[in-house]
Amino acid sequence: MKDKGKLFVISGPSGAGKSTVVFKATEGRDDVCFSTSVTTRKPRPGEVDGKEYFFVDLEQFDEMVKNNELLEHATYVANSYGTPRAYVEKQIDAGIDVILDIEVQGARQINEKKPDAVKIFIIPPSLQDLERRLRGRGTDTERAIEARLIRARQEYAEADFYDYIIINDDAESAAKELAAIMVAERCKYSHRAHYLKEV
Amino acid sequence: MKDKGKLFVISGPSGAGKSTVVFKATEGRDDVCFSTSVTTRKPRPGEVDGKEYFFVDLEQFDEMVKNNELLEHATYVANSYGTPRAYVEKQIDAGIDVILDIEVQGARQINEKKPDAVKIFIIPPSLQDLERRLRGRGTDTERAIEARLIRARQEYAEADFYDYIIINDDAESAAKELAAIMVAERCKYSHRAHYLKEV
Repeated sequence: MKDKGKLFVISGPSGAGKSTVVFKATEGRDDVCFSTSVTTRKPRPGEVDGKEYFFVDLEQFDEMVKNNELLEHATYVANSYGTPRAYVEKQIDAGIDVILDIEVQGARQINEKKPDAVKIFIIPPSLQDLERRLRGRGTDTERAIEARLIRARQEYAEADFYDYIIINDDAESAAKELAAIMVAERCKYSHRAHYLKEV
Repeated sequence: MKDKGKLFVISGPSGAGKSTVVFKATEGRDDVCFSTSVTTRKPRPGEVDGKEYFFVDLEQFDEMVKNNELLEHATYVANSYGTPRAYVEKQIDAGIDVILDIEVQGARQINEKKPDAVKIFIIPPSLQDLERRLRGRGTDTERAIEARLIRARQEYAEADFYDYIIINDDAESAAKELAAIMVAERCKYSHRAHYLKEV
């Protein structure tokens, strides 16, 4: 009996270094993938359906929402995005871990529809540090930086349903923690109880 | 603020290879220790109070039980043994992980008195494999082997309160899983929520 994979929901303030941590933690693994979203946005040149996104029209999207086929969904600037349950479940059944980088509100929706998803919150060592990182990137206006900091505070206050907190002080250590969490979750009693029951 | 340690309760049938797995998983770490038990047994030559055991008389032991100073206790062949709460808490407060190798009944007592203890069940890949290992050791009589196998089945059936199951197919991989669990547990939301609250 092949062990199933798990859904790992990763959140954290913009500038916390989530992508680097996830990249380092999963490097070289062939049994992990990123979730592919459904979107009503038009494909850009070169984008392939089922690779960058699953492209659907608004009617199909609404149908998916109605049929509870999306684990979460949201609308940004006239385009809707969602996480397709069937795609995620298919990977998990094949023993593949699925990673989803999403903000706190989306994570909360997923937590309600799929409580066994593993919720991980990645934060910088402090908000002062986050501010330094955001300024260091040089991509945001002063106003955008302030908005991001306010948003981070809000997210911290709403993050009580996460299972784990990773403090990204050093990307290598943070990646080791994420990798350890992914291993540990596969050892959970609920995930392996069948080994005891087969006796 | 220094992170606290955690209590890791390790159980599993005799012959599952627990000691090797624990040894490999904690090798080189100076922030982990084994729990020291209290006992009414007389010290053997060379044994030091507070090292192999805390040696107490029966009256002191009963007093500790009455005052809820033991996380679990049991009596074998006229001698009583117990896990002292104060010792465990002191290590944990100092940021040290405490490992306790104990059978299922003791683990259940600890689970009731200290629900945040991390309970890990280490098993061989199969009972056939366990039987092979027990015979391979050549230390048990045929009757003792049969008794151990019956006991293993019982323990499997009672192990539903454990947090994790490690299958010791290969000691290196099993040790990696145990080490990962120890890292992951330190990342738990409940263990790190203070980082969010300090904001």
